Amino acid sequence: MVEQETLLLNTKGRGSYNITEDVQQLVASTGIETGLCHVFVMHTSASLMLCENADPAVRQDMETFMANLVCDGDPMFIHCDEGPDDMAAHVRTVLTHSDLTLPVQAGRCALGVWQGIFLWEHRTMGHRRKIIVTMQGD
Amino acid sequence: MVEQETLLLNTKGRGSYNITEDVQQLVASTGIETGLCHVFVMHTSASLMLCENADPAVRQDMETFMANLVCDGDPMFIHCDEGPDDMAAHVRTVLTHSDLTLPVQAGRCALGVWQGIFLWEHRTMGHRRKIIVTMQGD
Amino acid sequence: MVEQETLLLNTKGRGSYNITEDVQQLVASTGIETGLCHVFVMHTSASLMLCENADPAVRQDMETFMANLVCDGDPMFIHCDEGPDDMAAHVRTVLTHSDLTLPVQAGRCALGVWQGIFLWEHRTMGHRRKIIVTMQGD
Repeated sequence: MVEQETLLLNTKGRGSYNITEDVQQLVASTGIETGLCHVFVMHTSASLMLCENADPAVRQDMETFMANLVCDGDPMFIHCDEGPDDMAAHVRTVLTHSDLTLPVQAGRCALGVWQGIFLWEHRTMGHRRKIIVTMQGD
Repeated sequence: MVEQETLLLNTKGRGSYNITEDVQQLVASTGIETGLCHVFVMHTSASLMLCENADPAVRQDMETFMANLVCDGDPMFIHCDEGPDDMAAHVRTVLTHSDLTLPVQAGRCALGVWQGIFLWEHRTMGHRRKIIVTMQGD
Repeated sequence: MVEQETLLLNTKGRGSYNITEDVQQLVASTGIETGLCHVFVMHTSASLMLCENADPAVRQDMETFMANLVCDGDPMFIHCDEGPDDMAAHVRTVLTHSDLTLPVQAGRCALGVWQGIFLWEHRTMGHRRKIIVTMQGD
């Protein structure tokens, strides 16, 4: 069985947004017991992160690390049509993940105790983000 | 239904090569309407990148960023059997993606408007690269 | 056909552990000839790496690179409940891969000659790691 759904998310700018429950509800609604759940972001300046979901400081540190690794407005970047965060957002997306695949077990994504699924908005302004979720299995 | 095909690409050395249309044509040839398309590079010194496909400066900046992050011939590297770009190519591969999975919707990979699929050659010399494309769905 | 199995691995601390044969044996046991094999780590401080598997210096260099990129105990990190390697392990996980999907061809994962599948333990102490392997195909 293959089922495909779309999630829409309005972000408020740079940061990570927990979509774990949205994805789990889609999986539950298909009735698939065993299989895979694929999550895909249709953008080049936002990505996905499977991250510790208990202490919010972890995602704050992740943000700090990434802001240091990929500097907004770095003079080495040529592409800056949409401002200093434009090219940085593309790099951050490539260094992380546009798609994640999760095992479905007993009708749910079999995440570890500390794992949560996050959309990572890399632009400083808010955007409307589209995520396609495809679920395959029995 | 499962269909598997092989793409062969002769690169001309370091840089990114657009394979979006090659992948879309394989998907179209299977007749699969809804499902997933998995793209896999069989090498440890070339990878895949889902990247902005409109302004070529984006991929030029991506190259500049990566060359700064992972320095060819960095003296901290022990493994340099095949020259200064050898170990750098392995690191660049691990930091990006050997495989990508894309949703298939209405008989095509459902990419965002700005998304393109690129093979990223990390060696300075050209290589013959082998990519396996597996498509599953209804 | 969908088959799902669990691999358990006791690591001895930071470093990479070859799980290629474990995964190949699971695939062989299913009898699937053509399809996909999905490998998923249920943790936020260990990840997966598809890496050169011939010269051990490659993985040693990978470790050196990563230790330089993400410094244990970096004062910019707030989250350090479990020691200086705690937040660094989360960052290393996000920069690499929690899941890998591999094509199955002729009853085996169709890896390139130099490719091996490794669990990458990012904590300095040993941990018991759980990996879910899901195989789909005909």
